[in-house]
Amino acid sequence: MNRIDIEISEVGPRDGLQSIKSIMPLDAKKAWISAEAACGVPEIEVGSFVPPRLLPQLADTAELVAHARTIDGLVVAALVPNFKGAENAIKAGVHKVTIPLSASETHSMANVNRTHNQMIDEVKKIVALIRTLPPERRPRFEGGISTAFGCTLEGPVPEAKILALASALMEAGCDEVGLSDTTGYATPGHIARLVRAVKKEVGEDRLTGLHLHNTRGLGLANVLAALDQGITTFDASLGGLGGCPFAPGASGNIVTEDLVFMLDAMGLKTGINLEELLKVRTILAEALPDEDLFGFVPEAGLPKGYPDGYVFQRHP
Amino acid sequence: MNRIDIEISEVGPRDGLQSIKSIMPLDAKKAWISAEAACGVPEIEVGSFVPPRLLPQLADTAELVAHARTIDGLVVAALVPNFKGAENAIKAGVHKVTIPLSASETHSMANVNRTHNQMIDEVKKIVALIRTLPPERRPRFEGGISTAFGCTLEGPVPEAKILALASALMEAGCDEVGLSDTTGYATPGHIARLVRAVKKEVGEDRLTGLHLHNTRGLGLANVLAALDQGITTFDASLGGLGGCPFAPGASGNIVTEDLVFMLDAMGLKTGINLEELLKVRTILAEALPDEDLFGFVPEAGLPKGYPDGYVFQRHP
Repeated sequence: MNRIDIEISEVGPRDGLQSIKSIMPLDAKKAWISAEAACGVPEIEVGSFVPPRLLPQLADTAELVAHARTIDGLVVAALVPNFKGAENAIKAGVHKVTIPLSASETHSMANVNRTHNQMIDEVKKIVALIRTLPPERRPRFEGGISTAFGCTLEGPVPEAKILALASALMEAGCDEVGLSDTTGYATPGHIARLVRAVKKEVGEDRLTGLHLHNTRGLGLANVLAALDQGITTFDASLGGLGGCPFAPGASGNIVTEDLVFMLDAMGLKTGINLEELLKVRTILAEALPDEDLFGFVPEAGLPKGYPDGYVFQRHP
Repeated sequence: MNRIDIEISEVGPRDGLQSIKSIMPLDAKKAWISAEAACGVPEIEVGSFVPPRLLPQLADTAELVAHARTIDGLVVAALVPNFKGAENAIKAGVHKVTIPLSASETHSMANVNRTHNQMIDEVKKIVALIRTLPPERRPRFEGGISTAFGCTLEGPVPEAKILALASALMEAGCDEVGLSDTTGYATPGHIARLVRAVKKEVGEDRLTGLHLHNTRGLGLANVLAALDQGITTFDASLGGLGGCPFAPGASGNIVTEDLVFMLDAMGLKTGINLEELLKVRTILAEALPDEDLFGFVPEAGLPKGYPDGYVFQRHP
């Protein structure tokens, strides 16, 4: 396997699909996951273990985990809202489990009807479950702090609250924490400051990943700011699929294609073949004819003669 | 006047309007320029002194210069393709003249039917003309190197060629050089490298401005990379109006609103009131009903409680 500098985690099958009305057929999802993995995408969040009545779009997550696990070398990730979800995710055989903990308690109550303390209790139960497993079967367990850069309900979220939650997640037994710009409020200075502060709080190697949105057009600028702080994992969604259903027109996750283009051009290896990745959009376009796909690079095309003559590192 | 860290030059009335089919009525252009100046935009490129048969959209540039010059404190800029244009621009009374010099000779021939040497000769004639004026009436004269980051016709442009052109422009008597990512090919590493190299070639204070496009979604990431290299002036276009007519769907200039949002949130003063600026879009929407306006911040809105609690500098 080639060297990878920056790990891209494709979250379209989870964050993209949960945000749209259309339900993607299981076979198309499998084809999507297989195609992205074939392009070199190292990790895919294939779904979320939530009750099907809440998110019918993701009802087949267990089947997708089974499928994705047949792909050599792919890290199969899933989101879980609670202990029950984690139980199902582990039963299905995921390699990585992420539980979102909303920094805004108002948002946490609205989203999962649980206070911070109740969420930390869930985390502890999940950790206890994972520790019953033989080491080789234990998934990596991430606590993802959502609305970390501000909340559409509460507004600014104090840094002290993020640090307290990050500590609580680590003390409860998570392997790592992540920060999610759920609302698209993050800006480069905020990224720099919060990443530094959280790394200082929990340890340099315990915050490696960010989940960024492009809601206000700063997604890739935020990535750049995060790279300067040593972040090495970014979530992204093919075609920018999805986004916040409560902000119509506002785009959602950063676009995988655009992110790969930027990193490639900076000489940062992602292991992903961009030209092949661009072709995977066809699977989405065909399976989701009613949904918009985003992305600047797909629209404009690659520069003439790319990549030869276009790879420039930022630092001399 | 308040401190300004970063100067934004609004180029929509020139680069935006030259790239669309609709012709904006003179009164609407005047209203647009006045409204942006009232928001605190310090410099506006009001048009281009080209023959009206080539760009009928910009036929009223001289009248716009006259109008804009009545606005206290506003720097009134215009583009000129050649000596004749510069003569007219100076007669009209602009504060700043920019002549584009395409780094790609193929593009230069296609665009203005002149070789590099012929363009440098034009520059020299313009400099001679400017030096006949009393010092207080001399406009600032910038040589803007276009297709500096790659050309849709030639592909990659060697750095040595850019450095040679930058030197030639300075030797011909320009006050400063600028770099234009005409094709939207620039990436953060390329920005860092080329800005460093050109500053080294012509002097730190002779390259202060960039003209960036968002064609591949990297516009604001490129701004961030440029800020790290000491760039202090950025062109931008309200509503991202225009863009390259030969790349349909690909967005054009970076969006003024999104740029102001990013800089504001980083604690970098632009002197521009963003909430007022967002209202100026109405003038464009009403005067150009057939044209698309872009911009993520306008679409998504400002964060709840912005700007309080959202201003974070990137460096500690």
